[in-house]
Amino acid sequence: MDLVTLDDIRSAADRVGPVVFRTPLVPAWETGLWIKPESLQPVGSFKLRGAVNAVARLDPVARARGVVTHSSGNHGQALAYAARAVGAPCTVVVPQGAPQIKIDKIRAYGAEVVLVPPSERLVEARRVAADTGRTIVPPYDHRDVIAGQGTIGLEIVADLPDVDVVLVPVGGGGLASGVATAVKALRPSTTVLGVEPELAADARDSLAAGEVVVWEVDRTWRTSADGLRTHLSPLTLAHLRARLDGIVTVSEEEIAATVGRLTRDARLVAEPSGAVALAARLFRAAELPAGRTVAVLSGGNVDPAVLASALER
Amino acid sequence: MDLVTLDDIRSAADRVGPVVFRTPLVPAWETGLWIKPESLQPVGSFKLRGAVNAVARLDPVARARGVVTHSSGNHGQALAYAARAVGAPCTVVVPQGAPQIKIDKIRAYGAEVVLVPPSERLVEARRVAADTGRTIVPPYDHRDVIAGQGTIGLEIVADLPDVDVVLVPVGGGGLASGVATAVKALRPSTTVLGVEPELAADARDSLAAGEVVVWEVDRTWRTSADGLRTHLSPLTLAHLRARLDGIVTVSEEEIAATVGRLTRDARLVAEPSGAVALAARLFRAAELPAGRTVAVLSGGNVDPAVLASALER
Repeated sequence: MDLVTLDDIRSAADRVGPVVFRTPLVPAWETGLWIKPESLQPVGSFKLRGAVNAVARLDPVARARGVVTHSSGNHGQALAYAARAVGAPCTVVVPQGAPQIKIDKIRAYGAEVVLVPPSERLVEARRVAADTGRTIVPPYDHRDVIAGQGTIGLEIVADLPDVDVVLVPVGGGGLASGVATAVKALRPSTTVLGVEPELAADARDSLAAGEVVVWEVDRTWRTSADGLRTHLSPLTLAHLRARLDGIVTVSEEEIAATVGRLTRDARLVAEPSGAVALAARLFRAAELPAGRTVAVLSGGNVDPAVLASALER
Repeated sequence: MDLVTLDDIRSAADRVGPVVFRTPLVPAWETGLWIKPESLQPVGSFKLRGAVNAVARLDPVARARGVVTHSSGNHGQALAYAARAVGAPCTVVVPQGAPQIKIDKIRAYGAEVVLVPPSERLVEARRVAADTGRTIVPPYDHRDVIAGQGTIGLEIVADLPDVDVVLVPVGGGGLASGVATAVKALRPSTTVLGVEPELAADARDSLAAGEVVVWEVDRTWRTSADGLRTHLSPLTLAHLRARLDGIVTVSEEEIAATVGRLTRDARLVAEPSGAVALAARLFRAAELPAGRTVAVLSGGNVDPAVLASALER
């Protein structure tokens, strides 16, 4: 399988530069630990990078026809924002029952929202694509998306050339694929570890099995890290097998405590999915190599009630 | 009166560079608005800049004898951190009844904490200074402290050379004095406005009167912006008269709503004092000039209960 290269990611960096916020490495509460706060992106998550790169890679005709996706979460918001940035139309297919605040944000970024029953999301997105000529931009199973997320890895090594350990959340694997590709290409001695919830450890199982292992939703719905319930694709699994050094898992209690700790001691707002890499450093340090560590805080779109609850821990 | 100069601030920038986090301008929720998040400093507030500069300016003998202050808030934590960074001893005189979490943080940064009745704070700090040879570093009434805070202004103009408006909280006036000095020297056409709570509008009154007007604590205790209850000194008033373009005031309701908005839409944690500049932009836009605006988010050490309450707005 044709994997994303360092050159792909470097080209992506040129494309995303004008739209994406160049996040700094923020020193955390202990020496030798930095946070890469993708929560500070305009849409509140790293997803903007992949979406901008994918939209920018469309030829002018395809761009004028626009893009469509069926993710109602961070990717939906990111694609809406990315499309608006280049004046491309965008449709986001959203399951009925999705939080109104998410729908409002997607509309605020100028995209059209189509509400359908949850089971019809994918079919509807394909119908929109067929009817309108819009290009489907998936949340992670796409080389341009992976290359866009990989720009985070470029920036980490540029800002901390002697980084020893990079910790990155794993959901569908697009972020981890891109970051591991960039970091390992630039600095092979750096350890790049994925982090996922114990309640959605499908990437760990997939890497062990050598094929995509799916944890059904009746298992994964229990994790608060709703962005990490998705499983890998063959494309992201291939990247992680080739370039990731391993997977660490964290408990729900550890995730919630880390959301609170980030608020109090780093003054950064994290959603549960965004906090898992920091949780690994806080609670699973014995499983990690020593040295200068960067943890990717991948997003900050947290339900205010969840944040308020985490503050009590 | 001898005012701080641009050269003083440039020298301060060289001194604070190794210790202070070089905060970025974070794009906010609308085009043309950026946030300068001093909440991301290691101690959670801009106070680190002035403290580091003041400690660095001590000669080797004075530095070995150490520093002392009677601020239990952000300045106390900042001075403890700054002293530890250069291996200088530090004593922080704290009023009995101060929150344990603040005492714990000051101790965690390696400083000695002396607990006294609130009315004896200043006397005790002077006694410590006399007994031990420690140098008193005040929170704002000091040229080196003002020069340190001014490095924020240097960075704003470096990152956004065509900035039109800078909004900055005003408590004792050290931050506003330093930022206005730097910004006006580098770009005289930029408007620099101070922002304070309606319930502690002593800087507005002082500028109108041409002398330091003190609002007694029986008035100012009502504002949630506890870092802005202090009054100006003759030194800071002189800077603000010469270099600030005016003062805008905001209500308690506006401050609380802004803390919530920053959490939800910028994924940044602000304490009430730290949010007033953004509150002016959100709620008093009609009183502000148009154009590219930077609001200084001066600190993020918020009581978790206050933050949880703000999230409901």
